[in-house]
Amino acid sequence: MAGGGDDLKLLAMWASPVALRVRLALSIKGISYEYVEQDLRNKSDLLLQSNPVHKKVPVLIHGGKPICESLVIVQYIDEVLSGAGPLLPTDPYERAVARFWAAFIDDKLMKANYQASWGKTEEDKSEGMKLMSEAVETLEGALRDCCKGKSFFGGANPGYVDVVLGGILPWVRAMEALLGIKTFDPVTTPLLAAWADSFDALDTVEAAMPDVGRLVEFAMNLQSAAAAEAATAAN
Amino acid sequence: MAGGGDDLKLLAMWASPVALRVRLALSIKGISYEYVEQDLRNKSDLLLQSNPVHKKVPVLIHGGKPICESLVIVQYIDEVLSGAGPLLPTDPYERAVARFWAAFIDDKLMKANYQASWGKTEEDKSEGMKLMSEAVETLEGALRDCCKGKSFFGGANPGYVDVVLGGILPWVRAMEALLGIKTFDPVTTPLLAAWADSFDALDTVEAAMPDVGRLVEFAMNLQSAAAAEAATAAN
Repeated sequence: MAGGGDDLKLLAMWASPVALRVRLALSIKGISYEYVEQDLRNKSDLLLQSNPVHKKVPVLIHGGKPICESLVIVQYIDEVLSGAGPLLPTDPYERAVARFWAAFIDDKLMKANYQASWGKTEEDKSEGMKLMSEAVETLEGALRDCCKGKSFFGGANPGYVDVVLGGILPWVRAMEALLGIKTFDPVTTPLLAAWADSFDALDTVEAAMPDVGRLVEFAMNLQSAAAAEAATAAN
Repeated sequence: MAGGGDDLKLLAMWASPVALRVRLALSIKGISYEYVEQDLRNKSDLLLQSNPVHKKVPVLIHGGKPICESLVIVQYIDEVLSGAGPLLPTDPYERAVARFWAAFIDDKLMKANYQASWGKTEEDKSEGMKLMSEAVETLEGALRDCCKGKSFFGGANPGYVDVVLGGILPWVRAMEALLGIKTFDPVTTPLLAAWADSFDALDTVEAAMPDVGRLVEFAMNLQSAAAAEAATAAN
């Protein structure tokens, strides 16, 4: 393991797709760090002091200085910490394209996925599913056009966009196990389905990924709690 | 004027706060370019081909290759085109902090401003105003903590965060003229009020800014159209 060590601390929560982006980036680059799990229902002083604006994970603390927001953190890691080859392309135009797709995943796919999972009404959830299908279709096009025959958005090796999209992958697997919904469908989105399998198969990725079974259980508990809350509100 | 020239084309719309970020970045860096105004009610083939995913301005076309999304474009300009000193800090930690605040302005301030201006109900608009006040207060704190006595987020000269926040400034002035609302209030947010005056006073900024009177007229027309649409929908 390169870089980081004692000087590098990650405040995260095991099921967070955005915290996972940072874990993936650190694992793929082979950087050692101290992992500090956060209880988001009872936030630590360290989290509140490190991210007073959003009070959210992930926060990377490097040499005592906090960096917040997953996309900002992954770029910081890539620019500052020594480790395996760059995640962002060295060519500035390709770098802009990678930043574009990372923003797309945040703005469209993540929001649609949240709406599909936790929408207030069935209609809201259904609209979320529709938006998610559209976003996935657009990403399939991106993988076809940009990456011509390469396994990853980053080319032969995973890069910035792979790490950003990869954060959602355990949730995609959990949704499949829970609801039978294949977000990256081998028939309609064969490139993304192959991408997901190739990405999951990397040792560095496997080392960072949460257990899907545990995630399914976590999602079921969250759904039960949301249903109980809705029933209480309706009474 | 440095850089760009014939090779550099900006697809924009004069009243767009996100397109303005790019105009400000190019003007502050002293880069010449071809400005191509877009009619967003009748989108050009060039816009649709250059930004097929979002079909929105701004798009920067450099050497025939399109770059989309304002934050991505401003970073690209700073990394690639020669011109006055860097907009993003050269220190990677400071760069991460600047990216954090740019994301904050997008995620919190811009969305709250949109909700306050175009919310579906009065309650929705009022919630938007509240969120906007909170975001502005947080930004005031950022300016106090980070920039200690300097005029700009970028220090003595305007940088990335200034350009990103600057895009909204003509709309802030227009809201003040239209509704009497001081978003950057000299009493409650003295640093931001002083920031706005210092930023507006720069020749390079003035050259890129739209006329506030024209923006007020534009906003009044949009509001009339929205009210007419709501009345039609209610009938």
